[in-house]
Amino acid sequence: MLAFPAVISPTASQKGQQTKAAIIDAALGLATHIGIEGLSIGAVADIAQMSKSGVFAHFGSREELQISVVREYHARFEAEVFFPALSVPRGLPRVRALFNNYISGAVEFDDRPGPVRDALASSVRTWLSAMTRAMEQAKECGDLCADADVTQLLFEIHGLILALHYDARFMKTAGSVQRALTGFEHILAAHISRPAP
Amino acid sequence: MLAFPAVISPTASQKGQQTKAAIIDAALGLATHIGIEGLSIGAVADIAQMSKSGVFAHFGSREELQISVVREYHARFEAEVFFPALSVPRGLPRVRALFNNYISGAVEFDDRPGPVRDALASSVRTWLSAMTRAMEQAKECGDLCADADVTQLLFEIHGLILALHYDARFMKTAGSVQRALTGFEHILAAHISRPAP
Repeated sequence: MLAFPAVISPTASQKGQQTKAAIIDAALGLATHIGIEGLSIGAVADIAQMSKSGVFAHFGSREELQISVVREYHARFEAEVFFPALSVPRGLPRVRALFNNYISGAVEFDDRPGPVRDALASSVRTWLSAMTRAMEQAKECGDLCADADVTQLLFEIHGLILALHYDARFMKTAGSVQRALTGFEHILAAHISRPAP
Repeated sequence: MLAFPAVISPTASQKGQQTKAAIIDAALGLATHIGIEGLSIGAVADIAQMSKSGVFAHFGSREELQISVVREYHARFEAEVFFPALSVPRGLPRVRALFNNYISGAVEFDDRPGPVRDALASSVRTWLSAMTRAMEQAKECGDLCADADVTQLLFEIHGLILALHYDARFMKTAGSVQRALTGFEHILAAHISRPAP
């Protein structure tokens, strides 16, 4: 991290925000392993190498800590998966970006119980909507066949992501990211517009 | 249920087995809604319209009840999904039967926490192994192309099942069984051996 020059040293409030962000970061990392239900002020203090009272000063309750972690998860999902894809040109490039960003980032966060699952379900809905729009645009601009069934494509593509999550969680087989990418290209290949001969 | 003629009325032991089976059946139905962790002697007595002590006479503990339910789940999975498919001829017919039996039966039981999830994971592994064998056989008998990548096919097909489960749980969209079947035919179509022209 860049040091602040002494003349514009951070205020106490800025330092507090940095500490709070560092705690949330540590808590999010912990939540990917034990689930958000397992998060407690004490457990987070341990891995953030702080006192319990230090963590408590930033989060008045375990629930507030958990809510902050879920909010951070949403923010990262949007920043890593969603927004970068929207800066890619419409059509197949954006469809591919949405898929690639998702499978390269979200594997760790698939299926924890409770609030994290709810947060995930909400992020998945955001992603499914964005992918639907991206595929409709790909049809409009002629990248995908005019008769491509977007609902069917979305179902099949979502299946690949779920299979990847399942492999990551239960099977631990090597090469599953490549299998998801190969499956994605299989699905697209059946619907890509060919130039007239 | 057929009535027993009085001359061969069931023994006390047979009646006990029938009662126990009826309790497990009720408990399994309840577990699909609340998860197996939520099963208790009291809750099961309620839906089986029995006294708690009546249920307790058949299952000495909550854990024993839960284990019986998981065992029953396995048995039904094998009876409804697995064994019927093995009586269908090898090749694509058996591949299709394994897929169709799974998606028409197992939707309710996808992703409960705890022992039911473990039971499911075990059943899914059984199914994935059976599907792998069925596809290898389909290659051997010439139904599928000799160069079909069975691991890739399995990944894609499993994805369809997971997408169906996801839809059933979160999206509640109509037509998802049909989408799974359509996706399955898309995957097979790319790998079915064509007769030489």
